[in-house]
Formats: sequence, C-alpha cells, structure tokens
Amino acid sequence: MAQAPAPTPLLKDELDIVIPTIRNLDFLEMWRPFFQPYHLIIVQDGDPSKTIKVPEGFDYELYNRNDINRILGPKASCISFKDSACRCFGYMVSKKKYIYTIDDDCFVAKDPSGKQINALEQHIKNLLSPSTPFFFNTLYDPYREGADFVRGYPFSLREGVPTAVSHGLWLNIPDYDAPTQLVKPLERNTRYVDAVLTVPKGTLFPMCGMNLAFNRELIGPAMYFGLMGDGQPIGRYDDMWAGWCIKVISDHLGWGIKTGLPYIWHSKASNPFVNLKKEYKGIYWQEELIPFFQSVTLPKECTTVQMCYVELSKQVKAKLGEVDPYFDKLADAMVTWIEAWDELNPPAKAAQLPNGTA
Amino acid sequence: MAQAPAPTPLLKDELDIVIPTIRNLDFLEMWRPFFQPYHLIIVQDGDPSKTIKVPEGFDYELYNRNDINRILGPKASCISFKDSACRCFGYMVSKKKYIYTIDDDCFVAKDPSGKQINALEQHIKNLLSPSTPFFFNTLYDPYREGADFVRGYPFSLREGVPTAVSHGLWLNIPDYDAPTQLVKPLERNTRYVDAVLTVPKGTLFPMCGMNLAFNRELIGPAMYFGLMGDGQPIGRYDDMWAGWCIKVISDHLGWGIKTGLPYIWHSKASNPFVNLKKEYKGIYWQEELIPFFQSVTLPKECTTVQMCYVELSKQVKAKLGEVDPYFDKLADAMVTWIEAWDELNPPAKAAQLPNGTA
Repeated sequence: MAQAPAPTPLLKDELDIVIPTIRNLDFLEMWRPFFQPYHLIIVQDGDPSKTIKVPEGFDYELYNRNDINRILGPKASCISFKDSACRCFGYMVSKKKYIYTIDDDCFVAKDPSGKQINALEQHIKNLLSPSTPFFFNTLYDPYREGADFVRGYPFSLREGVPTAVSHGLWLNIPDYDAPTQLVKPLERNTRYVDAVLTVPKGTLFPMCGMNLAFNRELIGPAMYFGLMGDGQPIGRYDDMWAGWCIKVISDHLGWGIKTGLPYIWHSKASNPFVNLKKEYKGIYWQEELIPFFQSVTLPKECTTVQMCYVELSKQVKAKLGEVDPYFDKLADAMVTWIEAWDELNPPAKAAQLPNGTA
Repeated sequence: MAQAPAPTPLLKDELDIVIPTIRNLDFLEMWRPFFQPYHLIIVQDGDPSKTIKVPEGFDYELYNRNDINRILGPKASCISFKDSACRCFGYMVSKKKYIYTIDDDCFVAKDPSGKQINALEQHIKNLLSPSTPFFFNTLYDPYREGADFVRGYPFSLREGVPTAVSHGLWLNIPDYDAPTQLVKPLERNTRYVDAVLTVPKGTLFPMCGMNLAFNRELIGPAMYFGLMGDGQPIGRYDDMWAGWCIKVISDHLGWGIKTGLPYIWHSKASNPFVNLKKEYKGIYWQEELIPFFQSVTLPKECTTVQMCYVELSKQVKAKLGEVDPYFDKLADAMVTWIEAWDELNPPAKAAQLPNGTA
C-alpha cells in the first residue's frame, strides 16, 4: 500500500513463544538476538523427571507432564503425550494475544543475500496486515512494500480481513511425509520463494506446526493439536488436524490464513521408518478427512470459535466415527479441550468485573 | 517429482505466438533467440492501411481489420476494434494445440542471477505439468524440480489435473488499474518470486493478457476477450473477462490454472488518464461481476467448453443484463464467438471422416 513502511512492532508483551521439547534447548542460542525479548512457554514432553536446560538470559515458564496433569486434572486427557502435539497446552496457558511456535530442530535461515532471517518479525508483519481470502492477487500479498492489488481486483475487497494464522516454511529439510522421505532421502529445499499469500476461502492446506504463528485471541480455541502419540493409533497429524479445523472455522468467521515467508532452517530429517509407523493410518484416513472438511458447513448461529469448534466436534463424531472409533475419542477430546480452554481463559471475565479486580 | 529433469520440449510445431499490435514489431529483436522457431500470428489493430514491419527471419501470418471482416463476415462483430482484445481472433485462426500471447511492450526479463528468462519455455513447462486445484501445496508447484507434495497432502490428489492456462507475471511496470497508477506513479515491481502455483478451485483471479499461455485444445473456445474499445463503453477488461470465464469453466471441467513464473519485463506504463476513461465503468461493474462469477454453477450436462460457454452467456444475459444493456450485447457476442470458432474449427471433423480425406 501507499504508506511508507513503518517499523514492525515487537509486540514483546503481547506474544509468547511456545516450544515443545524433550531435550536441552541449545538451539535457542542461535535465536537469542530475535527471541530474547519474548517470554517462552516450554512444554516438556516425555519423562517429567528429566531436567531440560534452557540457556541463560531467557525468560520462560516450563511445564512437564506432572504440571499438565495438576493444572488440568482429568481434562489433561486431551493433551497428547510423547508427541509434539503437547505444544497446544502452551497455547492454552498463555495469556497473550499472539503465539509463535517453533520446533527445537529449527534454526535461523538466511535469505538469498546471506542475511539472517528474523522469522518472528516476518510472522508479526503477516499477522498485523490483513488477508485477502475472497479473491486471488497475482502479485501475492498486496499489503507488502512495493506491491499492491493488481488491475481487476475488486475495490470492495481491498480492505481485506483480519489475519488469524501465519504459516511459515522451511529451507533444507522439507516437511515431507514418510513415503516421500523414503523415496527422496536426499531432497533438500533450497528454493527461497519471496512471497506471502492468503490461502483462498474454501481451500484446505497442510498446516505444519514447525514454524507457525497465530492470533490467539481470534483463533486460539481452535488450535487444538488432537490426540497423538502415546496410547493413540496415529502421530504426525497433529498440526494437519489443527490446520483443517482452523481453516474451516476461519472461512466461516471471515478471517484469513497466510502462508509463505518466513523461512526457518530445518536441520535434520526425522526417521522415515518411525514416521511411517506413526503416519500410516493417517495416510489412509486422510482420504476421508479431506472430503469431510471440504464439505463441512457451520451454521450461522456459530458466532464464536468455541461454538464453531464444538459444532465441528459433533460433525466429526457423526461422520468420521464410522471411519474409525478413534474419531469418537477425538471428538470427545475436542470438547474436553474447549472446556479446559474456557476454564483457564474465562470468557469475558474482565467484562463481568467492571471494577477490574479479577 | 522423483524423475531427473527432462529437457523441455520446444513444441515448435504445436504452438503459435499471438501478438496484437498497432506498430512495427521491433520488440521481437530481443525475443529472437526464443521466438524464432515458432510461428507468429499478428493481429493488426487500428488502421488496416498501415504497414506493420516485422523483423526479418520470423515466420508469421498477419491479419488486419479487413482480413477479419472478410474471414468472419457478419460474425466479425464479435471481434473488438481499437483494443488489444482483438488478439483473440488469433486464437481462433490458429490450428495449433497451444497459444502464447504477449504484448509488444514486453521485453525479456532477467532472473536474479542475471540470466535472460526464456518465458515461453517456462510457460510450456507449466502447461505440460499438471495442476493441483483441489488442495493447496505450501511448497508451491509440486511437479517442479526440487519440490514435491508436503506432508498432509492427500495421495489420491497427487496425480493432479490437466493444466489449461499458464499466467505469467511482469517485472518493472506492474499491471495496476488507473486509480492505483495515479496514486503510485513510481511503483515498480522488482520482486522476483520464484514460484508457480495453481489457483485453487472456486477462487477467481485477475488474469492479465500481457504474458499468457494456454492449451487451446482444452480451453480455447472460452478464451474470448469480449467487446472492448471502439464503440463499446469499456476497455481494459478484456483479459479479466476472459479470466473469469475460463476459471469457472475450468473449475467445472476439472482443469487447472497456474500463475507465477515466468516474468517478462514490462517496459512502459500506459497513460493512467486514458486508462481511467476506459476503466471507470468496469471498476463499477466489477463489483457485480465478481459475485456473479462466484455464484455461477454450470449444469452437469455441459461437458464441452462450447456448451459451458453458451450456458454462461445465457446466465450473463439473465443476470448481468440488468446491470447494463452492454451485457446483453456481450452475451450475444459470446454466442457469435462460439459460432465463429466452430465454423473455423469444425468440431471432430476428423472423427466424422474415418478415411481421413478431410
């Protein structure tokens, strides 16, 4: 747009960085110049007796499984164990407006000029500028410096809509499924695509949780990463599940999802044989899940994310329960998640207590 | 995909380059290394008594207004005069499977490494590889070297669908409407986005005719650039109109539209004051056209492009006729266009004459 570029706000008191991990967080050293101003929420997966070391100078809170069980009680059943899906607990306990979540095998990438990429700054830019889900702009994000809406773009749509999610990408190891990993073990992503774009309304996309930011106030209650890992028949579909849910709900509520920049450097491929074991049911079920999500319609009465999500859980139970009993369990967990969310984030509490003594 | 990259076929006997012009075609000198193997169809706009010079060594046929009138008779009324929309006459008289069309103020662009971009070669790559309109791939065109479908992409959709159109972009002068030109006279597009992507099913986009290739056998009869210019109340919406028509028809018939690479160098901005005069009704009407095209549904019985296009013309007449009488005239011209197309391209003539004596 026409204005001179404003400096990107840091939002340092409005954004938490959520990191799921089972190991010492040495990877933060490389991110220090970019992450140190922010508060970290570390969700420790696996053995809670293990001590996770966090480099000096970072401001953080850390939750292990014992903490999750203590805080949520029986509702802790909705939080996955031994799977990075546990990260969504961090979304729930945050009190901030925005979340950035990143995996601990992701490092700072460089742009084609060799400059280190401040991924978080780009996510903030994406989240603070509108999205354009109703019509495609061929020059990509029209709100970016040096770009605009092209000829033929309806003027009534140029204000855009609020951006709920910013989905970042990965240089080096691409986010492939196990079969593709097995077939192309040496493929590396070296292509830096200098673009951000809105995933159009009505189109589903594969949302990866490795490098992801979102407006928690808008879409937080739908950012549930499902039941994966320990005791579950499936893994590595946590972020995908969340992505399909947030997309149909954002479409319904009139918000946008952006994908593209920023890149992080994904350092190492996970074991494709282990991944295949986690994924194989998902690969099969997915063929039923996509048509399901493509045909979901939410009633007009659903005007909040919570209402949409509970309605979605009902449709999951009714239509995917036949695919596998797992989806019955998942539908129940979706409701438990919303209950737990609302317990930790009492809706409109401030509004109920006008003297602000909450 | 996994295969080693094959050399791109030239398709030199299967592709025509269509150029609308009012001036000598000196711009072809710069394109000589890339265009000389191909046959050119030059559509001369404006005064037919003027002689258009074509650089030596190019193989071409040239049509002026007298030729168009002679060949089409009364049906010539569907071909615009004094507007680059006249280019679609070239699509009609071509006998080739593919068309590339380019404006005569477009020059060879350079990629970030300084290498001259063979735009036509990239268009051919785009057209010969499938499209993926049903689900978004976050690493862009999965068929490109070094890329693939990411985790979470349904395997049943990985074959893709035939690509009907390849929409290329522009460095230097972006394709802005008159109001944006007036507001940002100095804006230049310097961002080289190294991506090709499929415009998802159900999403409309602004198709620019400056640097455009398509599979004429698939979508040719819908690539009509409408009534613009001399005697018409509107200009500069020719390619947009065609883009909306080909998109809803491709969605209906299960074909894909790609946009992104290749770039050409667009040398000079057209006069924004003149453009505003041509565009102002379009800017207003467009607000009704987009909802119309977004809600178009074509009946299952429409199984050919011609059937789809005639059906679309009926819906234009029924629903847009109220917006302005111009759309009544346009709907009639759409039917005339199809009649002229079928006259010059007799459907399945070979099939009717099994002895091949046609």
